[in-house]
Amino acid sequence: MAKTESKNGKGGFVQRLTPRDEDFAQWYTDVVTLTDLCDYAPIRGCMVVKPYGTAIWERIKEEMDSRFKASGHENVMMPMLIPENLLLKEAEHVEGFAPEVAWVTQGGKETLQERLAIRPTSEALFSVMYAKWLQSWRDLPLLYNQWCSVLRWEKTTRPFLRTSEFWWQEGHTLHETPEEAQEETMRMLDIYRQVCEDAMAMPVYTGRKSESEKFAGAVATYSIEAMMQDGKSLQAGTSHNFGDNFTKAYDVSFLSREGKLAHPYGTSWGASTRLIGALIMAHGDERGLKLPPRVAPYQVVVVPVAQHKEGVIEGAKAVADELSRAGIRVKFDDRDAVSPGFKFNDWELKGVPVRLEIGPRDLQSRQAVSVRRDTYEKEIAPLDGIAETVKSLLDSVQSNMFNTAKGFMDSRTETVTDFEQLKEAVKRGFAKAMWCGGADCEEEIKQKSGAGTRNMPFDQTPFADVCVHCGRPARHATYFAKAY
Amino acid sequence: MAKTESKNGKGGFVQRLTPRDEDFAQWYTDVVTLTDLCDYAPIRGCMVVKPYGTAIWERIKEEMDSRFKASGHENVMMPMLIPENLLLKEAEHVEGFAPEVAWVTQGGKETLQERLAIRPTSEALFSVMYAKWLQSWRDLPLLYNQWCSVLRWEKTTRPFLRTSEFWWQEGHTLHETPEEAQEETMRMLDIYRQVCEDAMAMPVYTGRKSESEKFAGAVATYSIEAMMQDGKSLQAGTSHNFGDNFTKAYDVSFLSREGKLAHPYGTSWGASTRLIGALIMAHGDERGLKLPPRVAPYQVVVVPVAQHKEGVIEGAKAVADELSRAGIRVKFDDRDAVSPGFKFNDWELKGVPVRLEIGPRDLQSRQAVSVRRDTYEKEIAPLDGIAETVKSLLDSVQSNMFNTAKGFMDSRTETVTDFEQLKEAVKRGFAKAMWCGGADCEEEIKQKSGAGTRNMPFDQTPFADVCVHCGRPARHATYFAKAY
Repeated sequence: MAKTESKNGKGGFVQRLTPRDEDFAQWYTDVVTLTDLCDYAPIRGCMVVKPYGTAIWERIKEEMDSRFKASGHENVMMPMLIPENLLLKEAEHVEGFAPEVAWVTQGGKETLQERLAIRPTSEALFSVMYAKWLQSWRDLPLLYNQWCSVLRWEKTTRPFLRTSEFWWQEGHTLHETPEEAQEETMRMLDIYRQVCEDAMAMPVYTGRKSESEKFAGAVATYSIEAMMQDGKSLQAGTSHNFGDNFTKAYDVSFLSREGKLAHPYGTSWGASTRLIGALIMAHGDERGLKLPPRVAPYQVVVVPVAQHKEGVIEGAKAVADELSRAGIRVKFDDRDAVSPGFKFNDWELKGVPVRLEIGPRDLQSRQAVSVRRDTYEKEIAPLDGIAETVKSLLDSVQSNMFNTAKGFMDSRTETVTDFEQLKEAVKRGFAKAMWCGGADCEEEIKQKSGAGTRNMPFDQTPFADVCVHCGRPARHATYFAKAY
Repeated sequence: MAKTESKNGKGGFVQRLTPRDEDFAQWYTDVVTLTDLCDYAPIRGCMVVKPYGTAIWERIKEEMDSRFKASGHENVMMPMLIPENLLLKEAEHVEGFAPEVAWVTQGGKETLQERLAIRPTSEALFSVMYAKWLQSWRDLPLLYNQWCSVLRWEKTTRPFLRTSEFWWQEGHTLHETPEEAQEETMRMLDIYRQVCEDAMAMPVYTGRKSESEKFAGAVATYSIEAMMQDGKSLQAGTSHNFGDNFTKAYDVSFLSREGKLAHPYGTSWGASTRLIGALIMAHGDERGLKLPPRVAPYQVVVVPVAQHKEGVIEGAKAVADELSRAGIRVKFDDRDAVSPGFKFNDWELKGVPVRLEIGPRDLQSRQAVSVRRDTYEKEIAPLDGIAETVKSLLDSVQSNMFNTAKGFMDSRTETVTDFEQLKEAVKRGFAKAMWCGGADCEEEIKQKSGAGTRNMPFDQTPFADVCVHCGRPARHATYFAKAY
């Protein structure tokens, strides 16, 4: 990663951004680095999330957490360590995660009797505690979530997209009936969809994962899949229905309404700091990051122009303060070592949705110049009622960003009925095809086209009788795409 | 820890609370368990923080985080692992923490070349990253904080007070001059004081720690010390001035205003989930937890009385909704399997500051009965303007709780000038005494009285010429107490 810029802004970093169309992967790395979102940590495969990246995460977190709480979920804090024997109880789960686990074997000076795993996910711990807490049907549902980091020993890593340690939330719930567990699984999938679409302005396809792509230990996994600007898919959140797999394996039971001992039905659901990577690749452009107002750390940057002239800083600051009082997240940039032009580039690079430029003549005319990050449109904004003007501008940026991304996704999603079409379609986006459901066929499609199954939409209206690849009877309408 | 209660509330748990005066330690354990704040985890010395405990932590966190941000600090997220060689650079620091470190030695199937420590604290990582990020004096100050959990392999543990893993925030800052570092150290100590006194209604003594009690690697450590109801002290937050100890050890430097390479001056400061333990022991009483309104997950519980009668649930619910709309955190308890009396006890045990009882006749008379948790005072509250009434009641509970705790602390703090007095004073509270400053003397005082130095207040007006214990010249006015 490139050396981080000093606040005094030496070096014209805008030129150094690789063009998006030339090398999307390098463009991504440039944006991540130059916008100070994160940095490589001195531990293999790990990152440090810097203030700007952390602030975005805090906004996404707030959007999710408020929805979790509104739907009756409560947060808990579980330990980061899991004794080996507890991790090993659900067979598929172990197989899925064991290769990625980091093990603690020494505590202080003593060698531990039993290895402790740093949690790769916390099904095991929640199950053990639920076994202790759950008594009767009256305790159900248990609707718990935790915000934490988890660790999976990854070979190949990329900032935000795949790192050994990452930050996420993991919800774990228990229900009296399989139907309620399924409802919960769908409810949380829809909350992820809302956060992506409404807060992050990022449209997604919701659907069920194939058998081979489902979570280790789940009965069914559902995902939301977002399209990045290189046409690849990014899995942005998953919601799992566990049936009674984990509650049987961990002996979690309750006294039913009929007075019998029964196993409850479980779900889990998670979304992570990957979403920041998604945000970058769904919206960014040749000038850098482009943030939707609802998750932008700063929604507006106020830049005084000719700030050495009398009254300019004070006048511009007064506008910034007014916006701030109106509940808008504002950055007031009165750095004196760099020019306004430098600041414009800098905040465009950082993706701030709206810029207000205020110079001496603007102040005389009681106005500011507003520039939207999404369209670069410039407008004169009267200072009277500036907060309302900016709010409606932010709303307009938010919806325009969603519509643009939606238009892009629609235009790059093709319904295909033969395999040559599929191979072409996944070069630029998603292919929607009828598939036989066979794991062997899925694997062959991947080897031949580079694209895997992403998910199977809830609308399963068939549009072909045979599998797009193998010609066996078609079973599932399915999205195929290359993926992160 | 006792089996947790079901929501259907079988078993009259109120009787099971050990009287506070009889066995304070057992009372504490009972409160922690029976109020569902936390539970023992299946990992030695670790706890699970349950929803009610987590909600309190979220409130405390919000009180701190908003103050950190208002004073210019930004959050970051650092990895949980620290390579051994990086941890070893600051000699005193290593010596202080090495015995408590948990080590990762295996990642997936490979044995690691170098052991990785689970962070016991993050000075090392911040220093390494600062060395990379810091360029010029224009970048200073760097004012970063992170919210995370840390792990210290503890031998003896107690929920919230001392657990191997605990949750906290750790601020790490760099400054151009030693004066600025000292100012920062004091600023953050005062923010801790504010959060404890204004939000948690818990008065504290602020001051400097003795040499033997300071943080491993610091030039000076400052603390806030709160008095628990058994007269013992609980260190509720610490703020450290590092001078250039860490920046030299980790080679962190910047180009000064004079164009020379210089080491900046550092601070760090932390407060943890210990504060929940403090909250319990500073305010709790014979009926359980007593929460100050500003950090209470629920500020008000609305209990319908005779809820089977027509219109009662709806009427009481309407009141709860009105309070909620006014920004008050409300619990509406319409459980039908337990009696109102059970609910009263239950929410008193859980420390909810205000209870509103609403029955059919209350609704007819357009009133509710309010009961404060701090004084058990009952009042008739007209439903017209109920939100304002409740808000002023909450303000009154908040200030009364602080005044009560302050009165208690004042009455149990004794200024002493001879050692016999000190020994007596620390049986019931704090002794303020003149001390020579010698580590040997400090240790002897501890062995003879059970009380250690807590901190040395900023007001150092002397009140004796010789040390309270050894008779050498007095150097520091100092608080002595037994401690958690």
